[in-house]
Amino acid sequence: MGIGRFGVMTSGGDAPGMNAAVRAVFRMANHLGLEAVGIQDGYQGLLNGQLLSVSDQQLEGIERRGGTILGTSRSSEFRTPRGLDQALMQLQQHNIEALVVIGGEGSFQGALSLHRRGFQVVGVPASIDNDVGGTAVAIGVDTAINTALDALDKLKDTASAFRRAFVVEVMGRHSGWIALQSAIAAGADMVLIPEVPYQVETVMQRLREAKASGKSHFILVAAEGVKPTATELSAQITGRADVPFESRLTILGHIQRGGSPTAFDRLLAARLGARAAEELAAGRPGTVIGLRNMQTVTTPLEDATKEPKHFNPETHRFAEILAG
Amino acid sequence: MGIGRFGVMTSGGDAPGMNAAVRAVFRMANHLGLEAVGIQDGYQGLLNGQLLSVSDQQLEGIERRGGTILGTSRSSEFRTPRGLDQALMQLQQHNIEALVVIGGEGSFQGALSLHRRGFQVVGVPASIDNDVGGTAVAIGVDTAINTALDALDKLKDTASAFRRAFVVEVMGRHSGWIALQSAIAAGADMVLIPEVPYQVETVMQRLREAKASGKSHFILVAAEGVKPTATELSAQITGRADVPFESRLTILGHIQRGGSPTAFDRLLAARLGARAAEELAAGRPGTVIGLRNMQTVTTPLEDATKEPKHFNPETHRFAEILAG
Amino acid sequence: MGIGRFGVMTSGGDAPGMNAAVRAVFRMANHLGLEAVGIQDGYQGLLNGQLLSVSDQQLEGIERRGGTILGTSRSSEFRTPRGLDQALMQLQQHNIEALVVIGGEGSFQGALSLHRRGFQVVGVPASIDNDVGGTAVAIGVDTAINTALDALDKLKDTASAFRRAFVVEVMGRHSGWIALQSAIAAGADMVLIPEVPYQVETVMQRLREAKASGKSHFILVAAEGVKPTATELSAQITGRADVPFESRLTILGHIQRGGSPTAFDRLLAARLGARAAEELAAGRPGTVIGLRNMQTVTTPLEDATKEPKHFNPETHRFAEILAG
Amino acid sequence: MGIGRFGVMTSGGDAPGMNAAVRAVFRMANHLGLEAVGIQDGYQGLLNGQLLSVSDQQLEGIERRGGTILGTSRSSEFRTPRGLDQALMQLQQHNIEALVVIGGEGSFQGALSLHRRGFQVVGVPASIDNDVGGTAVAIGVDTAINTALDALDKLKDTASAFRRAFVVEVMGRHSGWIALQSAIAAGADMVLIPEVPYQVETVMQRLREAKASGKSHFILVAAEGVKPTATELSAQITGRADVPFESRLTILGHIQRGGSPTAFDRLLAARLGARAAEELAAGRPGTVIGLRNMQTVTTPLEDATKEPKHFNPETHRFAEILAG
Repeated sequence: MGIGRFGVMTSGGDAPGMNAAVRAVFRMANHLGLEAVGIQDGYQGLLNGQLLSVSDQQLEGIERRGGTILGTSRSSEFRTPRGLDQALMQLQQHNIEALVVIGGEGSFQGALSLHRRGFQVVGVPASIDNDVGGTAVAIGVDTAINTALDALDKLKDTASAFRRAFVVEVMGRHSGWIALQSAIAAGADMVLIPEVPYQVETVMQRLREAKASGKSHFILVAAEGVKPTATELSAQITGRADVPFESRLTILGHIQRGGSPTAFDRLLAARLGARAAEELAAGRPGTVIGLRNMQTVTTPLEDATKEPKHFNPETHRFAEILAG
Repeated sequence: MGIGRFGVMTSGGDAPGMNAAVRAVFRMANHLGLEAVGIQDGYQGLLNGQLLSVSDQQLEGIERRGGTILGTSRSSEFRTPRGLDQALMQLQQHNIEALVVIGGEGSFQGALSLHRRGFQVVGVPASIDNDVGGTAVAIGVDTAINTALDALDKLKDTASAFRRAFVVEVMGRHSGWIALQSAIAAGADMVLIPEVPYQVETVMQRLREAKASGKSHFILVAAEGVKPTATELSAQITGRADVPFESRLTILGHIQRGGSPTAFDRLLAARLGARAAEELAAGRPGTVIGLRNMQTVTTPLEDATKEPKHFNPETHRFAEILAG
Repeated sequence: MGIGRFGVMTSGGDAPGMNAAVRAVFRMANHLGLEAVGIQDGYQGLLNGQLLSVSDQQLEGIERRGGTILGTSRSSEFRTPRGLDQALMQLQQHNIEALVVIGGEGSFQGALSLHRRGFQVVGVPASIDNDVGGTAVAIGVDTAINTALDALDKLKDTASAFRRAFVVEVMGRHSGWIALQSAIAAGADMVLIPEVPYQVETVMQRLREAKASGKSHFILVAAEGVKPTATELSAQITGRADVPFESRLTILGHIQRGGSPTAFDRLLAARLGARAAEELAAGRPGTVIGLRNMQTVTTPLEDATKEPKHFNPETHRFAEILAG
Repeated sequence: MGIGRFGVMTSGGDAPGMNAAVRAVFRMANHLGLEAVGIQDGYQGLLNGQLLSVSDQQLEGIERRGGTILGTSRSSEFRTPRGLDQALMQLQQHNIEALVVIGGEGSFQGALSLHRRGFQVVGVPASIDNDVGGTAVAIGVDTAINTALDALDKLKDTASAFRRAFVVEVMGRHSGWIALQSAIAAGADMVLIPEVPYQVETVMQRLREAKASGKSHFILVAAEGVKPTATELSAQITGRADVPFESRLTILGHIQRGGSPTAFDRLLAARLGARAAEELAAGRPGTVIGLRNMQTVTTPLEDATKEPKHFNPETHRFAEILAG
């Protein structure tokens, strides 16, 4: 048995394509004769009972906007037993029978808590770090990688003119996904990721080798979570007689969360968002909607949240072969 | 047993990412200790014995360039038995033991002819129309869709200002792939594809319904191969009293083949190109390298060239639900 | 003496940066203690008394959106004496003491009519064709040229791969501005503009010369207003034995009116829009606000609307020298 | 009387559009029957006699590439009397009668030294900081501002989702040009520039006011040269109880020097570069070619290098009015 009225929220770090997913959920709900209502600012907004009715006009054109019209938050309050109780109470009070949660790993832990209390919930993975279970790729990853790539392309232009080493910090506290993929796509010379510890001396050795082999520039991509950090590394290799390139630092920061989503992210968001509404309509909650082998698939929330983060050392090796 | 020296060519309609694939083949060849040599202008250049030695410096930065540094062509001469003989003679004469062919369906027919004559050949699918067998997605598709999407986004800006209907012709003589995907991503109002015949009257009816429902603009995406064509359709609905929107025509044409490839296309090209060199090194020719379920896979050339073009009517229906 | 409450409208063909200009007018009005109110859909909306109160929140982020949140129209009714009377009546009825008209040549003719009837009005030039008097450059021109340039860049990628001639139609019914500027910026091979008649035979001759000089591709930019049109030209040179390139047609159409405005257009819009509010506050209506020598300047509406459209044949000659 | 053979170099920090300027110099030289030769890596290359013959084919398509095909450098050796002597000797030895120097302030000081020794030299201003005399705007400025603006736009997407304060460092050690212009174009909330000292307390006060007025995000643009730096500022306002926004840091760095040049920069480069060749051909060396009031103009090197850097406090005030 399906449901009549359900809520839609975006939660955690925002990712490009969240708006396209919101739009798809509402459109498909409308197509299926369900009533969808927005919840503002994620779980925190749910606790506060901040509902948002979303008109057709408000959905117009949001597929190409970054950010999220619903707002988002990280709520520590929701994670307490009392917070969970209050959330369930708000849902009941506002006559919301089910929930679509668009977000990442932390958001799905929250969804799982609701599910375990018997509430109907479906997750749609959106996270630029691609560290969510239940899908081969999450909404926002493709846009974030293209943003990082655009920066690397620009640096390659200027690097070739000036014979410099550029240290570029991209997002990823625990995941090297953006760093690795953008480095391979750009043909960067070296990439540092949280999954593989590194020595500053190794970097300096690589710079010397690059110089010896006649390279005119050196691009190093470092994920946010590496130790020493990109900022520390850049400081350590600057102004040394034994390092043959001048080093310059770029920190991309949150620009990787913004921007108009790519076609890939909009299509992914459209498919996952629509499927989420269909699953609720069909009375099959408790899952994460994902993409595998170009098809939408469902994975139980329990399994998706336990799925090990696959880091493939082969990809790291591959980046080295393609480098330069 | 692997090979020592092999040729690399790009063939057929050019696709963004071909250069990134060329670079990956050469880099991996170098890593594996194989000698790779470029062949200019596809099969026609092969017939003429136009070889091209490609230096490391020439590979630098080509991953972000559209077009192909090797040139390409469509050769009718190669398709004749005499042409095939001459090609094999040239390959022998220049001491080329194998071939990587980067291209689309027609190019793989050529590769199959060589393969049937016992020559070692591997195909790497690159075609903006996504009409190649052996892979879920071909190199160039993602960039082409993003180019079409960018145009549709721009039209939505101006359409909302002016209350007009825009007819936009995108590439695809036999395939509605670019049309469908870009239409869904853009939230276009209607999409016409070669796989599904249409009536002009239906379009006019939809325009009237759009007006009646209060819509301020109407975006119609039409693939190149629809009948009547976008140009004919636009002429037929212009200036009619019973059509409530003024119509304007855009023909994107070959800009969809150009532009710096997206991260997706560069990563795909890097993986498929590198795998092609690995397959030749391992002595496993006669296949098309593809991507399925995020993994590189190989399919015998015989099978890949016979693979039915999957058109999924569900996708068309999906575009209608998400429209607007 | 200044005014208390004034209206803001966008009129005629929309241009990227109109929203940024609207925002600047409202912000400066607020800074100066004036009350500004939006008028929907240009002169037609004025006739119908369609007012629009615009909140601070609605202004947030509009500087980067194409189109115009106020809507626009071309009104033939307003140009009649009765229309003008009705407009003045609506203005009085709604207690609007002055008007900022953001638009092109036709819009300023309308503004002049109001001005001659003693109504306080100021014009802000916005027109992608750069065919407005009173300013060296109008809002929207820079974005439109960059959009055309982006298309030409993409064609150059693919043209070099395929040895083709591309005929690209850009906007400009009476003005060759976009065509000339984008052709020079792109290094296009030939450019056709309404100000300079041409012969098809000359184009064919140029194609033969290009071939003879070893050129691998040929890019021809044609403004909308040339005769024969780009479509006709392309048809005439296609498939002829005496034309050595295959020809392909691209029609950019209205995508040149859309897209997020460039920095130049946003800065221009900010400065002109703000100055418009300042002029009204200072009690100096009856002018067009323009940019000359990097400074904002004012020109009487009478003079601005009579200013001859400067076409500089030198620029055309310059395009030829830089071609290729 | 004009010259027969002259050299072209790019010097100092690279700027987008340098390649387009190089191309225009060569094309116009060819048109006028002069011989132009490239000099590699700026003044340092000149000292080493590194000449570069540049073919028509090498010029093809460079107008849309960032960086400079001629390379660049900062040479301390050239600034010594001995260095200057050696440069003049190299010029004589290689039969180079004149020089076009494409670069910024430091490069023009070098040009002035050569000019004072009687050597024919012409300067073409290219500097993303817009801190060169003799022109209203230098090559590269427009592209750099658009790159900064693109980053600010992306942050506004995500900022509205997360209620954060973003501190964004843009280039400009002594000049606030990029910071000011991009801040106005983006509608940033606050801008810090080297020309106007600031207090951290003032920033915190503004953050509190922003919160109080209900703002959901805060974008602060800081030029490289402000004290405390963006990095220091971000550290000081992070995690304080009396600062109501979480702060995040982005350092754009050298990506502002790269990227395909905008139409504006390509057109500017085309006009200034071509005029430089014309001036040499006409026997009028010793000047900087600039743009004023949309016309190319010449200014004696002596005057151009002494021109005070105009900082307009009005622009700073204007940024505040347009903020948000």
